[in-house]
Amino acid sequence: MAEPVTNLDEIRVLLGHLPGPDLESRAAATLRQRQLTKPAGSLGRLEELAIWLATWQARHPPCFEHPRTIVFAGNHGVAARGVSAYPASVTAQMVQNFVGGGAAVNQLCRVVDADLRVYEMNLDTPTGDIVVEPAMNEEECAKAIAYGMMAVEPGIDALAIGEMGIGNTTAAAALCAGLFGGEAELWTGPGTGVAGAALEGKRRAVAAAVALHRPVAHDPFDLLRRLGGLELAAITGAVMAARLGRIPVALDGFTSTAAAAVLFAADPHALDHCIVAHRSAEPGHRVLLERLDQRPLFDLGMRLGEASGATLALTLLKAAAACHNGMATFAEAGVSGPA
Amino acid sequence: MAEPVTNLDEIRVLLGHLPGPDLESRAAATLRQRQLTKPAGSLGRLEELAIWLATWQARHPPCFEHPRTIVFAGNHGVAARGVSAYPASVTAQMVQNFVGGGAAVNQLCRVVDADLRVYEMNLDTPTGDIVVEPAMNEEECAKAIAYGMMAVEPGIDALAIGEMGIGNTTAAAALCAGLFGGEAELWTGPGTGVAGAALEGKRRAVAAAVALHRPVAHDPFDLLRRLGGLELAAITGAVMAARLGRIPVALDGFTSTAAAAVLFAADPHALDHCIVAHRSAEPGHRVLLERLDQRPLFDLGMRLGEASGATLALTLLKAAAACHNGMATFAEAGVSGPA
Repeated sequence: MAEPVTNLDEIRVLLGHLPGPDLESRAAATLRQRQLTKPAGSLGRLEELAIWLATWQARHPPCFEHPRTIVFAGNHGVAARGVSAYPASVTAQMVQNFVGGGAAVNQLCRVVDADLRVYEMNLDTPTGDIVVEPAMNEEECAKAIAYGMMAVEPGIDALAIGEMGIGNTTAAAALCAGLFGGEAELWTGPGTGVAGAALEGKRRAVAAAVALHRPVAHDPFDLLRRLGGLELAAITGAVMAARLGRIPVALDGFTSTAAAAVLFAADPHALDHCIVAHRSAEPGHRVLLERLDQRPLFDLGMRLGEASGATLALTLLKAAAACHNGMATFAEAGVSGPA
Repeated sequence: MAEPVTNLDEIRVLLGHLPGPDLESRAAATLRQRQLTKPAGSLGRLEELAIWLATWQARHPPCFEHPRTIVFAGNHGVAARGVSAYPASVTAQMVQNFVGGGAAVNQLCRVVDADLRVYEMNLDTPTGDIVVEPAMNEEECAKAIAYGMMAVEPGIDALAIGEMGIGNTTAAAALCAGLFGGEAELWTGPGTGVAGAALEGKRRAVAAAVALHRPVAHDPFDLLRRLGGLELAAITGAVMAARLGRIPVALDGFTSTAAAAVLFAADPHALDHCIVAHRSAEPGHRVLLERLDQRPLFDLGMRLGEASGATLALTLLKAAAACHNGMATFAEAGVSGPA
């Protein structure tokens, strides 16, 4: 992009140019799966994942040499309302923990040999408090999306996308209610662990934000601008850029999936290059997965964010690619087929 | 063991000497989990797995440097009845494929850096046809169990256990019906992919075998001898030896879990050091998991056997140990706790 992106219309135009599935790679992968030394279908979703990788990498055999995890971090004006169990200062502290190698996602990246990139987004300048104003103006939102797009570099084979931001499950719940309707109760959960009166206050904040912005928002991107946050907008952008760059994506939990859902609401095929890594323990995630018709790979009761579930899902993608590319065919191994 | 094991009573005696959980390691792991830089409980089952590893390794911190996958292969007299989609010769051919590095489990072991050991068990001499006679005599069964025990060597941190044996889901179904009751229909499924008349014949074989042996069998080990097979008995032995050696175990699919269930039927705590890796697509596995009160880690529609699911589960154990051991505490990272 020669000129910096400063308005959402440029993003809307890009959405009309997302590439579709590569049918040739899909056909080649499907054919190879039938020849490998196992009963047809017996690797279940690992077979589907291998074919999906080939389809959205637009290449056969699929490649899994350079997986990457990216985490976007942002702060939220609504956090001042006590919607989280933790103070907003924890966002920056956790970014330092990522840099120092001490967070969960650091360990998980090591397990799957993924490199980790963490992007701080103006942590000293939280977004507007969505209960009383839009989170971002048009230019801020467009720039955050563009920032997320630029974080997706060439040469990556698969991308795990996650976030860090105290208060962002409040934004995610409001965004989901904005995009898909439903009461605040349906989308609001404990996040980092709020309960009782604090949870009730979080629900009220979500309901108030949705009541303020939903009637006047004119499309999913405008809902993102009003109800989302910098790291959510960056995720929206990264998911788009990955599609344009032929990079399959593993989405993390509730907040990341909500950010990606903006694209789904604009185009139901815009997330075909994404899998949702796991079903988060955050209750809104289950509802969101149904709306997106996504079957997560794991259901392990995780609810940490910071791309932890998405990075774990990279291990399954790696396993799927390894089996697909490394297994012998019946002919190569001299194994008899069905009697 | 100075003298070779030749009767099942020696095995029954050993079952009375299985060590229990190491409460000190469990307490240390539980305490550390609370100090790590994440909301309490937010890593879900990864936290439970880390504590479980410490508990059954009897060591804190838990270690995951040397995971191993073992696959036992055997042949079954009942295979001559056409209960599988594949000829019995495929068992030996697949063992050669394991040796040559071309099977799914080879690729999965590479993903998680597990070493792989494959044990052939007299492939030229199938067990008796369980429809008309016991699979093994007492000495054969005891020796197969002892063989499985000896395959568990010191220095292993976690063990994935699986099998290869054309016809062995028939044996597993009969063994489950023997151990837990229920009609043959409940336990019999497509295995490698039989359907229609062949599946009906498989069900009849299971029903006939159970009707012949169940009334005269006097305990779970005798059911294993009558209805199981060499590789199933070896798995039973390996699971026992792992408990004695303080090695946590990931069980694979239907056949492996059925072999381990022999121990559960004899002592409901005998599998406390085991997790079941995944819910196999083989329908009997779902029933068996309920009987064992086991929640599998994955549900990916896999039904290959050869320790493929169990080896995939090693990646989750590795991730759990990595997070537990490598994450910073709130104090170390200077991250604020809940407000």
